[in-house]
Amino acid sequence: TKRLKFQTGKKALDWTVPKEWEAREAYIIGPDGKRYADFGKNNLHLLNYSVPFRGKMNLEELKTHLYSLPEQPDAIPYLTSYYKARWGFCLPHRVLTALPSGEYEVVVDTRLYDGHVEIGETVLPGQSTREILFSSYLCHPSLANNELSGPLVTAFLYRKIAAMPKRRFTYRFALMPETIGSICYLSLRGASFKQRLVAGYQITCVGNPAAWTYKRSRRGSCLADRAAEIILRDSGAAYELIVFDPSVGSDERQYCSPGYNLPVGSLMRTMYGRYPQYHTSLDNKNFISFETLAKSVEVYFDMVQAIENNRVWINKVARGEPQLGRRGLYPTLGGQKENEQEIRAMLWLLNLADGTKDLLDVAVVSGQPLKLLITAASKLSKAKLIALKVS
Amino acid sequence: TKRLKFQTGKKALDWTVPKEWEAREAYIIGPDGKRYADFGKNNLHLLNYSVPFRGKMNLEELKTHLYSLPEQPDAIPYLTSYYKARWGFCLPHRVLTALPSGEYEVVVDTRLYDGHVEIGETVLPGQSTREILFSSYLCHPSLANNELSGPLVTAFLYRKIAAMPKRRFTYRFALMPETIGSICYLSLRGASFKQRLVAGYQITCVGNPAAWTYKRSRRGSCLADRAAEIILRDSGAAYELIVFDPSVGSDERQYCSPGYNLPVGSLMRTMYGRYPQYHTSLDNKNFISFETLAKSVEVYFDMVQAIENNRVWINKVARGEPQLGRRGLYPTLGGQKENEQEIRAMLWLLNLADGTKDLLDVAVVSGQPLKLLITAASKLSKAKLIALKVS
Amino acid sequence: TKRLKFQTGKKALDWTVPKEWEAREAYIIGPDGKRYADFGKNNLHLLNYSVPFRGKMNLEELKTHLYSLPEQPDAIPYLTSYYKARWGFCLPHRVLTALPSGEYEVVVDTRLYDGHVEIGETVLPGQSTREILFSSYLCHPSLANNELSGPLVTAFLYRKIAAMPKRRFTYRFALMPETIGSICYLSLRGASFKQRLVAGYQITCVGNPAAWTYKRSRRGSCLADRAAEIILRDSGAAYELIVFDPSVGSDERQYCSPGYNLPVGSLMRTMYGRYPQYHTSLDNKNFISFETLAKSVEVYFDMVQAIENNRVWINKVARGEPQLGRRGLYPTLGGQKENEQEIRAMLWLLNLADGTKDLLDVAVVSGQPLKLLITAASKLSKAKLIALKVS
Repeated sequence: TKRLKFQTGKKALDWTVPKEWEAREAYIIGPDGKRYADFGKNNLHLLNYSVPFRGKMNLEELKTHLYSLPEQPDAIPYLTSYYKARWGFCLPHRVLTALPSGEYEVVVDTRLYDGHVEIGETVLPGQSTREILFSSYLCHPSLANNELSGPLVTAFLYRKIAAMPKRRFTYRFALMPETIGSICYLSLRGASFKQRLVAGYQITCVGNPAAWTYKRSRRGSCLADRAAEIILRDSGAAYELIVFDPSVGSDERQYCSPGYNLPVGSLMRTMYGRYPQYHTSLDNKNFISFETLAKSVEVYFDMVQAIENNRVWINKVARGEPQLGRRGLYPTLGGQKENEQEIRAMLWLLNLADGTKDLLDVAVVSGQPLKLLITAASKLSKAKLIALKVS
Repeated sequence: TKRLKFQTGKKALDWTVPKEWEAREAYIIGPDGKRYADFGKNNLHLLNYSVPFRGKMNLEELKTHLYSLPEQPDAIPYLTSYYKARWGFCLPHRVLTALPSGEYEVVVDTRLYDGHVEIGETVLPGQSTREILFSSYLCHPSLANNELSGPLVTAFLYRKIAAMPKRRFTYRFALMPETIGSICYLSLRGASFKQRLVAGYQITCVGNPAAWTYKRSRRGSCLADRAAEIILRDSGAAYELIVFDPSVGSDERQYCSPGYNLPVGSLMRTMYGRYPQYHTSLDNKNFISFETLAKSVEVYFDMVQAIENNRVWINKVARGEPQLGRRGLYPTLGGQKENEQEIRAMLWLLNLADGTKDLLDVAVVSGQPLKLLITAASKLSKAKLIALKVS
Repeated sequence: TKRLKFQTGKKALDWTVPKEWEAREAYIIGPDGKRYADFGKNNLHLLNYSVPFRGKMNLEELKTHLYSLPEQPDAIPYLTSYYKARWGFCLPHRVLTALPSGEYEVVVDTRLYDGHVEIGETVLPGQSTREILFSSYLCHPSLANNELSGPLVTAFLYRKIAAMPKRRFTYRFALMPETIGSICYLSLRGASFKQRLVAGYQITCVGNPAAWTYKRSRRGSCLADRAAEIILRDSGAAYELIVFDPSVGSDERQYCSPGYNLPVGSLMRTMYGRYPQYHTSLDNKNFISFETLAKSVEVYFDMVQAIENNRVWINKVARGEPQLGRRGLYPTLGGQKENEQEIRAMLWLLNLADGTKDLLDVAVVSGQPLKLLITAASKLSKAKLIALKVS
């Protein structure tokens, strides 16, 4: 595991690494002597990246620094001001509108200093140097679905992949602050990714129990997309496929910028921007569940297995069906109304294994579940009826 | 403005220009002394291209020369007989069936003489000699939606295009009788159109207040089609797209004949053949409205602007998003639930501006309104984040 | 007509021809002296390919050799055991469950001997050596829709094709036992078919009055598929198109194996596996009708005509429409609301006859009925407005 650091002032692609920000304490004391919007109680109360300030002012002036959501009067909004020097507080609209008039004391004890953007990265090597990337972010304080769920699922997925008896591909995991983090990361790894990345996923919003949403890569049908879509199809669960959208999203916006155009998609539950709790204090631990997180790990791992098993098979008997019966692969009593599922998967694979389709293609064309096709490939390969295409 | 003339007897493509026809007066006088089907009152009463005739006959014989619509008993049908020498009268079925028996006097004072087919044409030059054509027809006497609406919209569209501060393309406007007119026109301009026409529209049936119908060119997705379809999509109005049909239509049948295959579509309201008033005296001024005509001019002009602004842009920052914030193109306060529409359009354009798509393609793929993309292109171009592709 | 024979023990593709089977008599005599499951009364009673056996046993032991369908208690199932030596009886579940306990006498008087697989084949020559194949099977004793209907329709179709005044293509008809028959047949004719077959159909399940099902070839849009789909579209009847499925089917599974990938589809009524009577004694003459068989012959013959008339036409007047009027191909009285269907078909054909589309393509793109297009082609060809493409 490495910690990659990018110093303040460093150029990264079109960007410059900003100063690092530290918040020690921040609050308002009202004319009634009460503390309001105390950063010590909920770090969402402080407008992220607020510049330091100490002073007194009346309510009217103070209000130009206060942010709330009139339509969600009990929620603290999550707000940032990275590129304009400001200070501010975020608080529930119900609290804001009840503030007594009079003089307030404001304390914003923060500092902006030459520091760095930091990225955590770890690699699980495989037989090939071709890579699969899992990326998530750490930057939204106190948020759950649209923050914590990503690193949690990434960490447990790491565990499952680390436990695989063998890996065809190399797996890379990275956690970073959103946007500036992936800009820095690509400035370091982008050229290598263009050569070696076969699939990648931005893991975010995977904690709340709801239907799946898969956002395709910019390419639209890369290996990452195809694996995700077959696994969702076979899962029997409700899901929605959405096309790549560079105008709303997480770090896939950077991975899929046209100069990289990497094969990176994003499997989510309810995605950013589509639930009212998004970017507010209501996106908290009540909004997510461990069961959902565990299921998200499982489905991401199914996608890994889909990619690991995605081979181009070639049949050895192409003219007519092979005689499965004498190889013990066909029931001895004929005439049943339904062939068994496994035989159907074998017949599909034999018919489509002409060297033009990988196993995901076969799953799409045949409609057969990928898991059955993987088993069929194993049996037919043992019976020497199919062989891996030599590329 | 030119008046192009094609003499009787002249060969034009596979056709020969017929004699010109003049009608001075035409009517029937009944045994009751009344005048029926008087051309002086409504020129639809005379079968178009009727040969001259004077004589007396009883009702039975006369009826072989009378045409009506039993299902629309108050309508005078519009009928022609260009290629067989005939005379005849068209009248409401209610009138026809009430004609008293007895002897009738028939006057058809017409003449067929060596004359010409005449086409009015005018050109508004632009920076490029590549052309956009607007074509309409003048030949159905007294009809409104399926006749007058076309030249009217063409004329007002001319005015708006003439007033543009600059034009990228050259605009050509032509009015002619249907079919034989466009055959003659193509015999003169066809070769030039094949080289220079980038888009064209047959303007017809644009007067009655109803949903739009866009009939695609034979090519199916030429510039004319793409501009029309995006403008309709963005308009929010109801519309129907229909594929090219050579068996029913106006002069796009000639422009889109396979030897020319010009990029010519046709934006209409309720199209020919789809309303009961079609080709009868009921397709009159009550069936159309000035508001609708004005709106049709506006939408055709939107299509002109879509074509004028249809550029291939290339982003200058392709690896990662550019930092819009330091260029004043991004809000300084982050974390809002909704980016503004304009920023979304900018991010889409930046992502798709890889030199493979023009702005109409970007509008299709992104789903962003074309007008927002035109504004985004202007802003990003000023910020030097995109540049025109050098072709 | 030839009888092609393939001897027991002969290798055919991946298979070996098995022994031939003859059944003389087979039955069970119960403790009550009654005969059960008498092959002499219904040959479905004997498990097909049963090895010979004579002996006595009690009901319990006998039951391991008895087969029935609990969900269809009055039906005798059709079962086979080609690749494992077994004997057995099939009988209605209602009979099986009422068998009295006690000792039974079993007679299975069959023999397995060195014989052959036999295929009946006949050919109707045409102008070209390019071929169209009709294949059906003879192997399911006593079954009607999923057996007899195929050879019957094939035989009557043969009669109609034999009566054609001239044939562009050569027609080949073949009847054989399913699977092993077509494996043998392809071992003989496969290489020739790869060179010469332009279309083929597996004829099966064409006897019961129900909607059509067309199963596409593996290629998905070969000439056989295109002809079938246009004829079904134009028929006005209900039909379903299904994609090629190698895991369930008849001999198209062999013809469409990837090493041959022949242009063979299958037009059926209710297909195998989709009706409860399938592979039981209920698939009998009550399930089919002569009217349906005759209609199936007719539609197959329509497909033949679609293929025979499928030409690439090229228009001689490509710039503008030709003047149909002076050739007597257009009504002399213009302005009717509807062109006649025949003129519409002519205008479509003229517009699309640019050498890139055959008549089936024209039927698809235009939506015009194929029969009208065939008539239009004939008229336009006589008027020298179109000519056959010289390939």
